[in-house]
Parts: sequence; structure tokens; C-alpha cells
Amino acid sequence: MIEEKVFKNYPHKHLLGIEGLLPDSINYLINLSKKYANYLEDNNQKLDDLKNKTCINLFFENSTRTRTSFELAGKKLGADMLNISVGSSSIKKGETLIDTAMTLNAMQPDLIVVRHNDAGAVKLLSEKVNCGVINAGDGPHEHPTQALLDSLTILRRKKTISGLKVAICGDIMHSRVARSNIHLLNTLGAEVRVIGPATLIPKQIESMGVKVFYKMKEGLKDVDVIIMLRLQLERMSGSFVPSIREYFRYYGLNNEKLTYAQPDALVLHPGPMNRGVEIDSELADDLDRSAIFEQVQMGVAVRMACLKALVKDR
Amino acid sequence: MIEEKVFKNYPHKHLLGIEGLLPDSINYLINLSKKYANYLEDNNQKLDDLKNKTCINLFFENSTRTRTSFELAGKKLGADMLNISVGSSSIKKGETLIDTAMTLNAMQPDLIVVRHNDAGAVKLLSEKVNCGVINAGDGPHEHPTQALLDSLTILRRKKTISGLKVAICGDIMHSRVARSNIHLLNTLGAEVRVIGPATLIPKQIESMGVKVFYKMKEGLKDVDVIIMLRLQLERMSGSFVPSIREYFRYYGLNNEKLTYAQPDALVLHPGPMNRGVEIDSELADDLDRSAIFEQVQMGVAVRMACLKALVKDR
Amino acid sequence: MIEEKVFKNYPHKHLLGIEGLLPDSINYLINLSKKYANYLEDNNQKLDDLKNKTCINLFFENSTRTRTSFELAGKKLGADMLNISVGSSSIKKGETLIDTAMTLNAMQPDLIVVRHNDAGAVKLLSEKVNCGVINAGDGPHEHPTQALLDSLTILRRKKTISGLKVAICGDIMHSRVARSNIHLLNTLGAEVRVIGPATLIPKQIESMGVKVFYKMKEGLKDVDVIIMLRLQLERMSGSFVPSIREYFRYYGLNNEKLTYAQPDALVLHPGPMNRGVEIDSELADDLDRSAIFEQVQMGVAVRMACLKALVKDR
Repeated sequence: MIEEKVFKNYPHKHLLGIEGLLPDSINYLINLSKKYANYLEDNNQKLDDLKNKTCINLFFENSTRTRTSFELAGKKLGADMLNISVGSSSIKKGETLIDTAMTLNAMQPDLIVVRHNDAGAVKLLSEKVNCGVINAGDGPHEHPTQALLDSLTILRRKKTISGLKVAICGDIMHSRVARSNIHLLNTLGAEVRVIGPATLIPKQIESMGVKVFYKMKEGLKDVDVIIMLRLQLERMSGSFVPSIREYFRYYGLNNEKLTYAQPDALVLHPGPMNRGVEIDSELADDLDRSAIFEQVQMGVAVRMACLKALVKDR
Repeated sequence: MIEEKVFKNYPHKHLLGIEGLLPDSINYLINLSKKYANYLEDNNQKLDDLKNKTCINLFFENSTRTRTSFELAGKKLGADMLNISVGSSSIKKGETLIDTAMTLNAMQPDLIVVRHNDAGAVKLLSEKVNCGVINAGDGPHEHPTQALLDSLTILRRKKTISGLKVAICGDIMHSRVARSNIHLLNTLGAEVRVIGPATLIPKQIESMGVKVFYKMKEGLKDVDVIIMLRLQLERMSGSFVPSIREYFRYYGLNNEKLTYAQPDALVLHPGPMNRGVEIDSELADDLDRSAIFEQVQMGVAVRMACLKALVKDR
Repeated sequence: MIEEKVFKNYPHKHLLGIEGLLPDSINYLINLSKKYANYLEDNNQKLDDLKNKTCINLFFENSTRTRTSFELAGKKLGADMLNISVGSSSIKKGETLIDTAMTLNAMQPDLIVVRHNDAGAVKLLSEKVNCGVINAGDGPHEHPTQALLDSLTILRRKKTISGLKVAICGDIMHSRVARSNIHLLNTLGAEVRVIGPATLIPKQIESMGVKVFYKMKEGLKDVDVIIMLRLQLERMSGSFVPSIREYFRYYGLNNEKLTYAQPDALVLHPGPMNRGVEIDSELADDLDRSAIFEQVQMGVAVRMACLKALVKDR
């Protein structure tokens, strides 16, 4: 079991979002994630931190990477992991979200990880259960473990978050990744910008403490980190963006646009990528500039930390 | 490992239904379930009763609660649980049920839990395998673990089954829950009534040892336990029931109709519920009257008992 | 842990196909499979050969038997097994195969088992990951563990492969099972024939070292082993074969056609079977002649051997 007495504790029952978390709570989770990341690099033995514990992965939306990442994280800690996906579930029979929550609660799991396509659904569910709940993405609202793994990746490459200039680019409007990252990066003292076409940037986003840019050249100026967002291809039809070719021309990150940023600017993407849409394929594969697969690696460590922090001894 | 020498044994290879089981066999399963329920309330350690054993959950129909309940139960006993759901299976390629049975049998699992949409399919499958088989619901035929968990829940609240008046209400015709409960409650000495519209009550059901009522007011008179059944909403169109509103008015359980029963009458529902169709939403959430989520909790214990009783030492 | 020093080692990182494997490598895998098969017959304890190891089952095509067989095999060796099926995965969101590979690789599994509907897709994926990859079937290309389990089954019944006459019958054109078996049986010294309608036999298949027959009577003459292939029923419409009835009449194996072969000829089928299409139902169930379910049993042992051979100590 990894020793964690040096850290303060995570004081909340759930992890529903980054919004409202104090720097101490965020740092606690990131520091515990670092410990697990280091452990995984040095060891091939499973841990028993969550021995005898049962976690449920409850996914109302498809996901490979997030579901697998949580499942792996739990198994590496010795937990039993159960998967419930809406495609193979009686939730289709018309049961309400609250009844699903109360039913799973009656089975007395130690933690529930939930992805849902509606903002707020995970919070609603969390209010009906006795165990901790981790939001693995709720509609366009929040995706806190993604923001934590992004920050852990940035920290490994840049040593600090505070004072960094970070640009988040693309479909800000529909992105839970953008929202969680804005909260987290601001809390830890970064300067956060968002860049995208006006149709994909919410009104009044400045109130979240970001600067808005509509041109990559201006927005990327001097930034240390660029977080590219996935463009939902179903939004390519007309109303939001004119065409994939146009989008890539104006907002797709390539080596040319990268020159606007700091010479050592780091590129992140939450995946899955649309190569040639929001990011140039060669750039995505350039391991010096792009940390896209390091993000995935850190994702397992972050989920281990979050599971460990939220599963309580009964 | 839980000591179980005080009980007689479960003498059958499979658990295909409640029909035909002797009171001793039923009591054995219920008593073992009680032990596991008590264990789960007092302990958070997994047991090793089924260490080194492998169980297959073979679900030809979608299910959240039943599949998850069996998976949890098996894992709490230390078994390896494998899930096969028809949606992601080559059974769609046209393989016969018997070949599926023989194929899985050749992999030498220790137990197979089967849900299938055809009555009798689980029995057919059980005849082709060497290991024990548990029926997790076969069409409108039987759902024995549901009846066992209903009785365990009743016993915890009412201390006895014998002599109780129990009403089963709603779509009796299509309900495996109704059939298994009628067999079980009769065997243990309850007086069983069924209540529902004539279109949803099979002819000659009196031969199963129940009294038939078509009006809630008459059927609920003096009953100690009310088991509400889920109304399949796809049956709402015309031929079986006129409309959801009418159905709720005549057969939906609410506090007013509840006054017809004993003052301390207990309300059960196998879930998932259609709130506002067969049961009033507030009543469902009244933990003094409704044991709906206690049923789910008992479900895990009952499945642990059934797995333990049916997995044989090789 | 099973002692395996008496064998030479499997020298490759992956198992992508039988083509190109030396006899030593094949014999190593078959001998290790035999050991595991014997172990499973004598013991009901799990092994710890793959303790602390994590394997991912990545299935882009539905499968009951192969996926379950690998999952069981891994669990019997103490590994953690994760299932990813394309039906419930974000691969549908348009991620490339290579990005899926690199994403899973970043999660640092110890092995990935892949089934994909395109020939060559598994090799492509294997080039992007650090861990070993087992091909569980890639389009019409190869299905190496199927060929290994077929040979293990033949060896148990016939004591040798070398010198045997083996006929592979049916849809040779689209069959990865045929291709892998042709390579394996040839490498171990069998005489391999293929039999089928001209529309279902690829041109120039003789270059793989087989004799081609278009009539069962001629092709089955004196053979020791008959491998029947599954006919994809979607190919029954017109262009490939005229009708199910005609197909069964000319190419379906029954007791009459079986008389053309050696009196003790053994019948194999990779499953799932179309009874009454490529094989007579009674013959399939004749355990003296047909080893169809023994193949499934050997499949678990073969997958245990392949997992063990390809998972490396880090």
C-alpha cells in the first residue's frame, strides 16, 4: 500500500467536477496520482489498496478509453470492477435515473463511476447513493479526471502549472473537457485562453476567467500548453462550422500554427483524435511536442488516485 | 467460509424453478441467504467459498439488476465471473441453444446462470451441461431467485410466511415473477391471491392454488403483503389494457388503495418500476411501507446462497 | 506454476498467424497446451502463471466462444482480463485503428488479444504496441489459435500429425480457419486437401501446398481427418452457392459421405455449426466420430499456452 500520510486528505464524498474544489484538494489528488504513476513505472505488482472493495462502472455513453482506464485502475488496486453499459441494460426499459441509482445503491458497492450524456445527471445520481461517485463525464458539463490527468501530464513536462499560459482550442461550447480544465488550470494559477470559431464559444465564457480569441495566431501567441479539443463530426454539418477543410485551415493545429506559441509549447488532446480535422497527423505523432499518449498513461494513475481517495473504509 | 452444517442440503443439480421444490429445499436456500445477508451487514471482506470456481452469466435478454446481482454475488464469494450477453455474441450467427450449451460446457465452468426469453429454454440448456444451472428468468415461466429474495424480504419484515395473506397484482399472465412467487408462497403456507384485469390473468390459474380478484378493493382486503408487478409498457396498446391512465386508476397501487389492506401491509416490486403506472411514486419511496430496495439488497445474498448451493466440488 | 524448461521457447513477440512459424515454435505451443490440458483435467485450482498481468480482449467482431475462451484461459492463469468490444466502444467515433492501438498501449497492458474483420489489421495494430499481440482472427486471413487447437485435438486422437491425410471442406475462400490450418498441418507434415465448390476455392491455392478437389467423394478418399468449415449463410444467396439444400446435398458431411474416408476418420468443425447445412446433425453429435466439443475444451488450454508464451516478464 502506498504511504500517503504526507498529503492532506480529499475532503469530499464525491468527485463530480473540478468547479468548487480548493487547490489543496486538487493538489492532493494530483500528488497521489504522481505516486501511483511512479509506482507503475517501477513495479509490475498489483497493489491491495482496494482489496475487498467493489466499484461499478456505469456508462450511459460509449467509451473505450475512459471505461477501460477506470477498470484497469481499479484492478491494479485490487478492487473488483463491474461494468454496466446502457446498451446492455434494463435502463432502456424506462427506469428512471434515480431508481437506477437506488437499485445499485442497494447492492452496496464501494464506489460508482458514472458517465452520462446529460449535464447534472451524475450529481443527481450521487444524491441517492451512500457510496462515493466519480463523474466520468456528464454531457457538456464536467470531466474532472480528464482535467486532472491533463494537469499531471503538464506538470511532468513543465514542472509547474502556476504562471503557465494555456490555450484550449476548438469546440469550447460542447466540451466538458474544456470546462473542467478551465476550472482546474485557473485554480492552480495558470492563465487560460480559449480559441475557436464564434459559433463554438459560449457567450459570457469570460466570466469563467478566460480570455477569448477567435484566431489561432492571436490566441496561441506565447502559450506554453495547447489543449486541442475533439470536434464532434456530427456538428460539421452547416450550422457550427462550414466544412472539415475550412475548419482544419482555420483551427486545425499543425506545425505552422504551432510556431505562434512558445518554442517548447506542449500539445495535448483528450482523444479520440480526428486526424486532419483538429490536429495534423504528423504533429500528433511527434512525441517531443505532443503528449497525447502520455495523457492516456497518466489517466490510469489519476483514476487510481481518485478511486483510492473516494472509496471509504466502511 | 460460512458454516452451514446446521442446514439440510439443497438436493438438486440445478435451480430451474420453484415449482416442485420441497419446503426443505426452499428453506435451505432462504436460511443460507439469511446467513449471507447477515455476513454482508457485518463484514466488508470477501469470502472464499467459491475460490477457484468459474461461473458464466449467459444473458439472452438485457438485464441490469439481475446480471449485476449475480456478478456481485459471485465476486463476493471469490468466484471468477464471465459475462456473455446475446447482443455481443455469436449466438446471433444462428447457433442453436443446445450447441451454445455444449460449447460452454466444453469450457468446463462450475456454474451457468441463464436468462432467456423463451419458457423452458433454461431447462433445455441445463440438460446438455455437466455443471449446475440457475434460471435467472425464462420468458413468462419462472424466476426462482426473485421469488426467494421476495420471501427473504418478507421474512425479515413479517418473521414468517406461513399464514400470511399475499396479493400479487397486475400482469399475472406474462409474469415469471408471479409464477415463481405463487409456487414458493404456497409451498411455505401463505394464502396467495392474484389481482388484475381479466385480460392479464390466465384462465385456470386457480389450479395453481390462488384466489382470483379483478378489483383491487376486494383483492387487497386484509392482505399482509402486496407484490406489484411491472407492466410491460409495450402491452399498453389496446388489446390488454386501455391506457396508462386507466390502468393506474384501477390497478395502480397508491395510498388510497393501500388502506384496503392490513394497516402494516408491506409493498414489494421486482423492479424496474414504472412510477405512476403500476405504483404511485411517493408510495414507492416510503421506506416504511415499501421494501423495494431492500429486495435488491436481499437479492445479492440470495444469489450468493444459490451459487454456493449449486457449485459442486469437483 | 507449470514447469516448462523441457521445451524450447516461443521466439516471437506476437502470434499473428501460423504462416512462417517454424515447426519448433508450433511444437512448443502445442506441447505447452498439452500440459495445460492435462493440468485442467486433474486440477480445479487456478494457476498463478500470469499473476499481476493484465490482458485486453479487443474484439471488433462479435464472438462468444473465442472471447470467452481467452477470458477463461487468462483467469485460470491468474491474469486480469479486460474486454473491449467494438459495439460498446468509442472506436465507432472514428478513431483510427492505430490510435486505438497506441491508446491501449499507453495503458501498458501485458498482452492484447485482437479480433478484427480486416485481414492484416491485427498486424498493423501489433506494430504500434510494446506488448505481445495474439491474432484471434483477422478477416479471411488467419486464426492461429484455432489451428493450434485443431492440431492438439487431432494429436489426442491420432497421436501424430505427420503423414496424416487431412481434408478441409467448404468455404475455403473466406476462411481464416482454413488458411491457418493449411499452414500448420503442412508445417507438421500432413497431406492437406481442400474440397468445395469452385466458387468457394481461391485460384492458385495449390501454391499453399494443397490438393484441390471439387467432389467430396474424391477428396475424402482415405483421409484421416475432416475439417468442416462453417458456411456463412449470408453467402447462400445466389452467387456462391445455389441453395442450402443443394449445398448440403453436395458438400454437407453426413454418414454416407463419411464412408469415403478412412473408417476411423475424425471430424472437426470450428463452430458455430450450421446443422443441416455443412454438417449432418446426428453426425455432429456422434462423439466417436466428431471431436467438435473436444476442440472447444482444447481451445482453453491452447489459449492458456499462448497467453503464457507471449506475456513477458517486464
